[in-house]
Amino acid sequence: MRLDVGEAGFAAQFEALVDARREADADVARDVATILRAVRDEGEAAVAAFTRKLDGHDLAETGWRIEPADCRAAYEGLEPELRAALDLAAARIRTYHEKQKPEDSEWVDEAGVRLGARWRPVDAAGLYVPGGRAAYPSSLLMNAIPAKVAGVGRLVMTVPTPGGQTNALVLAAAHLAGVDEVWRIGGAQAIGALAYGAGRIARVDVVTGPGNAWVAEAKRQVYGVVGIDMVAGPSEIVVVADAKNDPEWIAADLLSQAEHDTVTQSILFTDDAGFADKVAEAVDRQIPELATATVARAAWDANGAIIVVPTLDEAMPLVDRLAPEHLQIATDDPQALFDRVRHAGSVFLGRYTPEAIGDYVAGPNHVLPTGRRARFASGLSVLDFMKRTSFLGLTEESLKVLGPATVALAEAEGLPAHARSVALRLRLNR
Amino acid sequence: MRLDVGEAGFAAQFEALVDARREADADVARDVATILRAVRDEGEAAVAAFTRKLDGHDLAETGWRIEPADCRAAYEGLEPELRAALDLAAARIRTYHEKQKPEDSEWVDEAGVRLGARWRPVDAAGLYVPGGRAAYPSSLLMNAIPAKVAGVGRLVMTVPTPGGQTNALVLAAAHLAGVDEVWRIGGAQAIGALAYGAGRIARVDVVTGPGNAWVAEAKRQVYGVVGIDMVAGPSEIVVVADAKNDPEWIAADLLSQAEHDTVTQSILFTDDAGFADKVAEAVDRQIPELATATVARAAWDANGAIIVVPTLDEAMPLVDRLAPEHLQIATDDPQALFDRVRHAGSVFLGRYTPEAIGDYVAGPNHVLPTGRRARFASGLSVLDFMKRTSFLGLTEESLKVLGPATVALAEAEGLPAHARSVALRLRLNR
Repeated sequence: MRLDVGEAGFAAQFEALVDARREADADVARDVATILRAVRDEGEAAVAAFTRKLDGHDLAETGWRIEPADCRAAYEGLEPELRAALDLAAARIRTYHEKQKPEDSEWVDEAGVRLGARWRPVDAAGLYVPGGRAAYPSSLLMNAIPAKVAGVGRLVMTVPTPGGQTNALVLAAAHLAGVDEVWRIGGAQAIGALAYGAGRIARVDVVTGPGNAWVAEAKRQVYGVVGIDMVAGPSEIVVVADAKNDPEWIAADLLSQAEHDTVTQSILFTDDAGFADKVAEAVDRQIPELATATVARAAWDANGAIIVVPTLDEAMPLVDRLAPEHLQIATDDPQALFDRVRHAGSVFLGRYTPEAIGDYVAGPNHVLPTGRRARFASGLSVLDFMKRTSFLGLTEESLKVLGPATVALAEAEGLPAHARSVALRLRLNR
Repeated sequence: MRLDVGEAGFAAQFEALVDARREADADVARDVATILRAVRDEGEAAVAAFTRKLDGHDLAETGWRIEPADCRAAYEGLEPELRAALDLAAARIRTYHEKQKPEDSEWVDEAGVRLGARWRPVDAAGLYVPGGRAAYPSSLLMNAIPAKVAGVGRLVMTVPTPGGQTNALVLAAAHLAGVDEVWRIGGAQAIGALAYGAGRIARVDVVTGPGNAWVAEAKRQVYGVVGIDMVAGPSEIVVVADAKNDPEWIAADLLSQAEHDTVTQSILFTDDAGFADKVAEAVDRQIPELATATVARAAWDANGAIIVVPTLDEAMPLVDRLAPEHLQIATDDPQALFDRVRHAGSVFLGRYTPEAIGDYVAGPNHVLPTGRRARFASGLSVLDFMKRTSFLGLTEESLKVLGPATVALAEAEGLPAHARSVALRLRLNR
């Protein structure tokens, strides 16, 4: 789709891009509710039944768990170049996330009140790793390493193994990341097992990780029973690029999103109509050369857009409306445009920062808010695996300072026992 | 309920306390889904209809908004003692939450990669304030002030006004906290209006605030469309107290939770059976003296418990199982026991720190995780009104360092356009 800000009808066309519904529908929600209820009520029998039906293997035969020794063997069996790449990714992800660790705080204020906050990891985290077409070891590292950095004691992973087939690269990544348990289950039934527990699978406290529409909806439905990272929908990229870029590079960037799934969205803003033409041509030329051509073609045709703006400055309010998961700014001075961005999951600055670098080895998390949720949500972080306990301590003296106001407010709110709990200690006549 | 760790059957009885289902049932979920769908599809007409039906007033007559001038007048009309109490509360809540503001970070690592994270407030936040029996100005301060500290530009409040009646204390608090818009609506329809927008009410990005079972379920259902603080369920307190406490004080503390609602849970752990008896007697003696006696009696009878443990140390693993919203440790050395706590929303240390102090003026937030959610969730904070954008910038040189590993991983994951976006820039022959 080619849009021009100056043309009649632009506002409505852009609105359609912003509002594009690429999310789970009501049927998915109903199916997922049925699966979750079955897992909650019937435990591992339900998990086994859904796995037989949906993944085509019998857990009693294939085994429920993938053993640590198998993961280690997969890691050791990797070809050296790939193992080094995984090692580099893990090390850089770890370093970036270590800077996210929150500090505890404690102070005594002028009223003599001791105040503070203390962070602790959750006891157990469940990591969903997609199987089949989207079997991504990088996802595993991006989920497992922040949990490890947080200090989570029990790291549980689920990964579907359709037809019983495992993915050596995923198992290798599990070994590298230090995952404690690996279960060969997937889909909504895996999310249910993690949230409610299911026989041999003990429940966890937080469930994270990307998945298809069923997995995303299942996470939404168990939210509150456990913590989750964020409802994940289809991916998107916005590229802001001037005419000084190589159109082939920008076309590859747009396609690196499109090849993920037919529902992903790739949008280019440029201030040069001729460059827009060249990128469109490069996209069409590159697609047939990709092993992922069918998916990329469908995604680009359905959800791709090139938008010509008078100046790149004028693109930025539109970018904020889109609140994209990924934003690439390919100009000589990307910082000037980045300063104007309020809503984006992760931003890739300059001509030599293709989004793919962030998917693997840069360090920041690639689990990011999709579907305009960067308006209010953040990428996965160490904080998603920790929680904060506030605390306070008063002395008799400081209670004298704060007590009367508390009594006044409690009485005004009609809560006499609240008032009494303070008044008794101060021997107030209430 | 009186339990003793040493008695037969304790494990099962305690398990029942941990698992007590005090949450919304399926009927509530269905009703809420119906209301939310109507508000999403029909906008303000649906909001007006539900308000007429459930709150008993016609918004066309009472007006949709409560004007800023009315809020200011309510504040100025407060009796001086109460106004001073509200002022003290607001100032102390602000000071505490200002310490939560996250810092942006940026660095260049040894590979020459620029990395960092940037925090920004959400554009608009919606604050739910309960009406009717639970019309709490303190809730408003606890929700509005963190949003203001975060830098949220548009602060929207909804408060039901049953029969059209407003609550002067709530309006005064709205003025004090700097709320920008006040709408006289409540229930699931208010949550729907905030999440989806409804005619004159523009949608927000985050919805926070406590409410009844319908409000809590509505927040759960719109999660993902907007951010929410946490699914809020009935409140609970756990008090850990030795025999050196005044049983009347501890009884008042337990009742300060029980008087909120018939489904709240109050649990005392003590190492002295005689003290347990005295607290039980004090509870029974105090209840009839409360204006909230009916609610407190029902809550205590249904969900109250006194548990005798051999030593208070032995109570702490049980406290972690309960992961209570509020934990009061009333001993000479509360820190020793606090050091052993992993899961609690907020902790009140020492004999002179009744939980009620934290409800109003201490400073930490009183919107806290309930229903065992302190296992994975935190109290409301400035972070709930902000989001983090990660960023990275590579040079041609640093892309040479990270590029080959990215190409290797992308190819291993079957994503050729990812690999190409890097390879083209490095002029690699792929």
